[in-house]
Amino acid sequence: MVTRVVYPGSFDPVTNGHVDIIRRAAQIFDEVIVAVFRNPQKKPLFTMEERVNFLIKATEGIKGVSIDSFTGLTVDYVKSKNAIAIIRGLRAISDFEGEFQMASMNKQIAGGIETIFFMTDTKYAFLSSSVVKEVAQFGGDIGDMVSECVHRALLEKFNVDKS
Amino acid sequence: MVTRVVYPGSFDPVTNGHVDIIRRAAQIFDEVIVAVFRNPQKKPLFTMEERVNFLIKATEGIKGVSIDSFTGLTVDYVKSKNAIAIIRGLRAISDFEGEFQMASMNKQIAGGIETIFFMTDTKYAFLSSSVVKEVAQFGGDIGDMVSECVHRALLEKFNVDKS
Amino acid sequence: MVTRVVYPGSFDPVTNGHVDIIRRAAQIFDEVIVAVFRNPQKKPLFTMEERVNFLIKATEGIKGVSIDSFTGLTVDYVKSKNAIAIIRGLRAISDFEGEFQMASMNKQIAGGIETIFFMTDTKYAFLSSSVVKEVAQFGGDIGDMVSECVHRALLEKFNVDKS
Amino acid sequence: MVTRVVYPGSFDPVTNGHVDIIRRAAQIFDEVIVAVFRNPQKKPLFTMEERVNFLIKATEGIKGVSIDSFTGLTVDYVKSKNAIAIIRGLRAISDFEGEFQMASMNKQIAGGIETIFFMTDTKYAFLSSSVVKEVAQFGGDIGDMVSECVHRALLEKFNVDKS
Amino acid sequence: MVTRVVYPGSFDPVTNGHVDIIRRAAQIFDEVIVAVFRNPQKKPLFTMEERVNFLIKATEGIKGVSIDSFTGLTVDYVKSKNAIAIIRGLRAISDFEGEFQMASMNKQIAGGIETIFFMTDTKYAFLSSSVVKEVAQFGGDIGDMVSECVHRALLEKFNVDKS
Amino acid sequence: MVTRVVYPGSFDPVTNGHVDIIRRAAQIFDEVIVAVFRNPQKKPLFTMEERVNFLIKATEGIKGVSIDSFTGLTVDYVKSKNAIAIIRGLRAISDFEGEFQMASMNKQIAGGIETIFFMTDTKYAFLSSSVVKEVAQFGGDIGDMVSECVHRALLEKFNVDKS
Repeated sequence: MVTRVVYPGSFDPVTNGHVDIIRRAAQIFDEVIVAVFRNPQKKPLFTMEERVNFLIKATEGIKGVSIDSFTGLTVDYVKSKNAIAIIRGLRAISDFEGEFQMASMNKQIAGGIETIFFMTDTKYAFLSSSVVKEVAQFGGDIGDMVSECVHRALLEKFNVDKS
Repeated sequence: MVTRVVYPGSFDPVTNGHVDIIRRAAQIFDEVIVAVFRNPQKKPLFTMEERVNFLIKATEGIKGVSIDSFTGLTVDYVKSKNAIAIIRGLRAISDFEGEFQMASMNKQIAGGIETIFFMTDTKYAFLSSSVVKEVAQFGGDIGDMVSECVHRALLEKFNVDKS
Repeated sequence: MVTRVVYPGSFDPVTNGHVDIIRRAAQIFDEVIVAVFRNPQKKPLFTMEERVNFLIKATEGIKGVSIDSFTGLTVDYVKSKNAIAIIRGLRAISDFEGEFQMASMNKQIAGGIETIFFMTDTKYAFLSSSVVKEVAQFGGDIGDMVSECVHRALLEKFNVDKS
Repeated sequence: MVTRVVYPGSFDPVTNGHVDIIRRAAQIFDEVIVAVFRNPQKKPLFTMEERVNFLIKATEGIKGVSIDSFTGLTVDYVKSKNAIAIIRGLRAISDFEGEFQMASMNKQIAGGIETIFFMTDTKYAFLSSSVVKEVAQFGGDIGDMVSECVHRALLEKFNVDKS
Repeated sequence: MVTRVVYPGSFDPVTNGHVDIIRRAAQIFDEVIVAVFRNPQKKPLFTMEERVNFLIKATEGIKGVSIDSFTGLTVDYVKSKNAIAIIRGLRAISDFEGEFQMASMNKQIAGGIETIFFMTDTKYAFLSSSVVKEVAQFGGDIGDMVSECVHRALLEKFNVDKS
Repeated sequence: MVTRVVYPGSFDPVTNGHVDIIRRAAQIFDEVIVAVFRNPQKKPLFTMEERVNFLIKATEGIKGVSIDSFTGLTVDYVKSKNAIAIIRGLRAISDFEGEFQMASMNKQIAGGIETIFFMTDTKYAFLSSSVVKEVAQFGGDIGDMVSECVHRALLEKFNVDKS
């Protein structure tokens, strides 16, 4: 049996914390579909195309990973891909309640869809896409927090002179 | 002594979790006033009239319940009704801190007003008006989460074809 | 309808935080039965008789309060008293999860028994019977935290010279 | 690739919450080894043999599940079984911090061993082996919380007359 | 060695909870710079000038305190002032996770900058600038929560007749 | 003004997480007294003399640090040393509530004694003396978690062959 899981998120942009989850999930499951969610209600910093491209580059060389995008209900997307579960990273700091609410709701509206949690590595516990954007905006060094391509894009976006 | 309590909230829209709290409160107290709060700062999905009507239908047959609306400070409203306490549902997931802050503040600015908490039934632990709206918007099945009238209204609102 | 509630606990010994909850409950409900739990598995500092007596003195003058003791399941005791609910204090600090687990369990094994929570006043947020005993043992001043009779008993218990 | 995971615990005794996690894990992974931990520091209510037998009966008919026991470090046991991950249930109520500490420690002392979390179903959120034992001891009805064999064993243990 | 610390925040407006932290920090450290953060992304209720003036008046007479404003990364500001640490108040209710994320991030992007936490006094546990504004807007009495100058400014802002 | 703080604890035994807090506190304050608490109610693994010696060796070379022991109330000890504050490490995982309760109590029984919190480095978030002992007992590698002298002592204590 091929085990296929979906890792949904906004990835605006992907951080090294996300990549760590993807890498670990790929060691457990045969196929990991990283699925960028198009939220009609939110205005992301990066376009869907940019976010997908960042993910493609950031996950290069991790076996079994593919990048996709979707809108609508996560559970509908997961079913359409015949995946056995949703995976999510869980940070000791701050994710717990929202993640549980989402997982409960997803289980309620689509009984067969399981959510499996990986614990975010403690060294990424402080990391989130929002924090990265906030720091980058004021010229803080985010080189250790994101892939090279995301780093460059954020520097350009905020017109920061990297010298 | 007739015991009268107020259950304030946005109820945009009322969920089955709210109704469960109302039903249980009505078994403990003589009169439960469900009071829809008009928040000048927020733009609700449903009008005040709609929200009040949903509540009237959803609580039909529960003895001692009446529906009202108010703006201004909750404690001022509670005093004007000669109620002995505010009641609130508390979900294991996610409500705790905000509810405590609000109850502390209410106690501070109006010493005599007590807040009493009911624990949300675990089967509604994932449920909130926001989650219901989000799921409905993408066509997810919310039939088990809200009253029939709310269900229909959400389907119309989001132009979802129920067939 | 006379509203009767039960406030169960070890009360080893009763603190001013407990008394605050009792006083507030007595303003909402007609009768508050404070019920000291005899736990065969734990060795309390004070005997059942002492704990009951401390409670009687500490709640003197609060209308509608009676003191009792019980062993066995809380829900069985509550039913035998024809009470409509269990009441519990909830501290922002540290009680939340244990209280919810207990309330859920009680609801599960005796559907009709409701648990209602009062928020512990922030000025008692740090207070617990264990903390009081620990401080008293080392001669710390606990005069503001417990009734006079409990204060004296703790001083004697720990052979502290109050001069 | 056969995916084998280990579900370690005391299982003193197994509850329906544990069985739910086992069933869900067995739908995701090929082999689930439920491994009862012999803790030299704790005195369990049931012997290792009893606990293993309860698990065998409670998981009868779930494909891919086997029951085992171990002592020593969990990560050493997991490696000896060539398993790819530890699985654990996570209750919204009360487990979060201890589980994270344990998972971090396990990752630290054995880099290759991943811990994967399943969210405990909200209907079991209040359930734990300790709570079950406490309720059973006082004659409370635990028929919905444990398997028939555990139910009978608890009734005998506490000399409760089931009539 | 002169010990200088920075207390950054929006202070929109300063509350008595903030002033309590400032007073306590000034007893531990030689110099406390209260630094109002200009967040280009948020629209404050009071201008930078107003917020700084409120702080000057509210901290009058506390030795070693100065008021300043800044934009950009907090850690860059702290370094430019040769301060040894950032200080922050921590409320039992609601601050914990956001504060830890911020402190971790600050430590990561500027290794030498330490964050030190003071526990907010329990009597201010419910207090925040947002809550104060919300209560003031509806004419609630906030006299005990903010300095006289802030009180007056809020009354004017919301056109409330103080009589 | 010389700033002197006290870092109280059981230190049974000291871990690298403790040493990290000591090192960081020593950069902020002139003198850090690490004070080992003799708890008459608990049976430590290591004697007071051993625990003090481990601390002396583990903090060698950190300027301004001294090691002491005490029994009785922490606040009494702190006052006797003319220290301005208690310092404590705060882990994102698991310490928060107990620490706040203790700090509130200490403030209550000795108004002048402040508690200041350092955030435990995320890389030590999983670390505690109990966890170290548990892992060492089963022969797990704790070389990265404690000082060399503690490591050796734990190996001897648990009769583990280090080869």
